[in-house]
Amino acid sequence: MDLLKVKKNDVLLKACLKEPVPYVPVWYMRQAGRYQPEYRAIRQKYSFFEISHNPEICAEVTKLPVTQLGVDAAILFADIMTPLKSIGINVDIVEGIGPVIENPIRSEKDLEGIRLLNPGNDIPFVQETIKILRDKLDVPLIGFAGAPFTLASYLIEGGPSKGYHITKGFMYSKPHLWQNLMARLSDLTISYLEAQIEAGAQIVQVFDSWVGALNSEDYHQYIAPFMHYIFSELKKTGVPTIYFASGATHLLKEWNELPVDVISLDWRTTIEEVRNQHIDKALQGNLDPSLLLAPFDLIKKRTKAILDQGKDKPGFIFNLGHGIFPSVKVDTLKKLTDYIHQYTRKDPVND
Amino acid sequence: MDLLKVKKNDVLLKACLKEPVPYVPVWYMRQAGRYQPEYRAIRQKYSFFEISHNPEICAEVTKLPVTQLGVDAAILFADIMTPLKSIGINVDIVEGIGPVIENPIRSEKDLEGIRLLNPGNDIPFVQETIKILRDKLDVPLIGFAGAPFTLASYLIEGGPSKGYHITKGFMYSKPHLWQNLMARLSDLTISYLEAQIEAGAQIVQVFDSWVGALNSEDYHQYIAPFMHYIFSELKKTGVPTIYFASGATHLLKEWNELPVDVISLDWRTTIEEVRNQHIDKALQGNLDPSLLLAPFDLIKKRTKAILDQGKDKPGFIFNLGHGIFPSVKVDTLKKLTDYIHQYTRKDPVND
Repeated sequence: MDLLKVKKNDVLLKACLKEPVPYVPVWYMRQAGRYQPEYRAIRQKYSFFEISHNPEICAEVTKLPVTQLGVDAAILFADIMTPLKSIGINVDIVEGIGPVIENPIRSEKDLEGIRLLNPGNDIPFVQETIKILRDKLDVPLIGFAGAPFTLASYLIEGGPSKGYHITKGFMYSKPHLWQNLMARLSDLTISYLEAQIEAGAQIVQVFDSWVGALNSEDYHQYIAPFMHYIFSELKKTGVPTIYFASGATHLLKEWNELPVDVISLDWRTTIEEVRNQHIDKALQGNLDPSLLLAPFDLIKKRTKAILDQGKDKPGFIFNLGHGIFPSVKVDTLKKLTDYIHQYTRKDPVND
Repeated sequence: MDLLKVKKNDVLLKACLKEPVPYVPVWYMRQAGRYQPEYRAIRQKYSFFEISHNPEICAEVTKLPVTQLGVDAAILFADIMTPLKSIGINVDIVEGIGPVIENPIRSEKDLEGIRLLNPGNDIPFVQETIKILRDKLDVPLIGFAGAPFTLASYLIEGGPSKGYHITKGFMYSKPHLWQNLMARLSDLTISYLEAQIEAGAQIVQVFDSWVGALNSEDYHQYIAPFMHYIFSELKKTGVPTIYFASGATHLLKEWNELPVDVISLDWRTTIEEVRNQHIDKALQGNLDPSLLLAPFDLIKKRTKAILDQGKDKPGFIFNLGHGIFPSVKVDTLKKLTDYIHQYTRKDPVND
């Protein structure tokens, strides 16, 4: 398939599809970010959205960690709020807080603004960035989007939340409005990811960062049908899909029923425990990002334990259980990437 | 034992000890709080610590939900930061944020201030409040304290955190200092709970609210020895103990090895799943507090499912999976309490 053609390094694509790989591929969530001195310098000059809306700068920021760390993929630099902002929702990224929405959703009328994307008008900069990157990268480019529950939590709470009480209260007490909201956000997500794929994204990851706040009964009833719809539509593109959440080990059996290719795990479980639960998807994960502040010997020990459980079965991608944070050192990630590649590289003689 | 004598209602005490009960006892975390109009009126006049340091007002606030909701226990009105504040740590409770520490712990020197409590000098108001309450209550009085990891997270981060990266970085990279800090916080916690028990607290709950951020390997290595020590010391008092965390289903097997009487569950698991894991402690939980915003029929349905799994085996206490929040209606909790009592009350004829 043409979309999946990669000039050189296709290890991540193979791992997503559970094909044999020469070594365990690795990339890191939030691998472009404030932990990089170069990124901090760019952010002195531009706001988050100024970077993500300028294809040349955005491509540079997206590509930097690939060169710097030697990872096996680039992930589009953007925010999960990008598609919402692009259809006119008033959202800002506030430093130290996160996305903040000016007019939180409360009633049916508030849903009217949530419409399908018209890529050429709404996100030309995303498609342009992807085209530039496809030309420059020799690793696959991952596109991404937020999942409906996680987007809804920002839209309803008005910003980040601890307990998601307003969101869940809305879900429980206005089920028809909830279905309407989730259907609109699902269509938006699909149109956003299709636009990325059309422009050249070769893998897409769906971030449902906060859905672990729900128990499996709620997930099954209020969320799963929409995730099933999203991944079914994406399947038609032929591009591999990854589903991520934090603190969602209790939802893995639900996730295993979805038409998604890869499940991204956090550190609250182990690859072995997940395999013992008969989860048969490709897996991605699952180092605690806090460990990046540990002495390198401890990072290596914990990484080795993950690799020992993951590397011998097809379909394993090394990643963190959540994003990199600002106080991590670039050098730590560079050494970690090298270690993962070296430790898992198959001896060509025995291949 | 004299400490355990309750004038009238000892149902909760019996449930903690897995003895037969006439109905499932219920109380709610943060049952004294901003959801009550009476509490809001008192908070107009006094700060949080002004209330908790004034025995007459504190006893009134502690007792109010017992009268108002008909619950089977009172829980001392205090904050988990109370013992730290009482030994001179500069902590404030900031509205909408939580506990904020002026000088976060970074080095060995910063640990020196963490010392044992001298109850008569440091927390006379806590003991006085408990004495007033024991005289006025006809339900058991629950004392409580924060657990070392959760206290350490505030002390190290300087306030609430999302990822606990600084705390975990400290734990991984300064293991001796971490042990020192945890030992000091363990001794503080024990002395604080012993003082509450001496004054009349009949059950104690240890809040390890954020420890679910660790995986079970870290919990086993860095936390479990201290929790073992705390619960072993408390066992000598004869007072039943409860251990609470949020998002910690993955730690239940570790918890089952501790000398604690009751494990408090959040909504991300079910009583049935926990029993199937051979967790044999008494259990407390586990309604999602967000459900308190749902129509009452749905609250009842979800509560019934919990009760059906919990009520027929000795050792079950109904509670929420986390604390009540301000937008909950008092009337909802009153109706819920009545429903739980009615639905689980054993027919005296069949007794």
